[in-house]
Amino acid sequence: MATIVVEVMLKPEILDPQGQAVASALPRLGFNFAQAVRQGKRFEIEVAGVPTPEQLADIERAAETLLSNPVIETYVVKVEA
Amino acid sequence: MATIVVEVMLKPEILDPQGQAVASALPRLGFNFAQAVRQGKRFEIEVAGVPTPEQLADIERAAETLLSNPVIETYVVKVEA
Repeated sequence: MATIVVEVMLKPEILDPQGQAVASALPRLGFNFAQAVRQGKRFEIEVAGVPTPEQLADIERAAETLLSNPVIETYVVKVEA
Repeated sequence: MATIVVEVMLKPEILDPQGQAVASALPRLGFNFAQAVRQGKRFEIEVAGVPTPEQLADIERAAETLLSNPVIETYVVKVEA
């Protein structure tokens, strides 16, 4: 059983109101470390056994079509043990 | 400038309708690799310079109080280059 992680983030040039809300809430709570915050999505996909190259290609296509909107978002696919 | 990543996922025992929606949409699109899908949040926090231990402790506290709901979610804090 392997876990494939797909991380989806808004492209840097796209406005991120969720991230801005977090960035402006942090100082109100006394946290002054953040210069900027971006919020994105994280998918953990369980795959039986070791993922094959065909499965990884499928996951790349699923990330591009279902999990992200390539017009405004970027994604990264990672295989975790 | 360092990027701190906070990954927030629902605890395994908490129902994840978003993940289930993705898991049931994948086969409809012809993707049959997934046995289970969980969806969570990912925060990228920009910090000036190398984060100090005090800043990392602050980030842990912010992750616990603002970025996650510890009743239903777990979080992981990672420092990226």
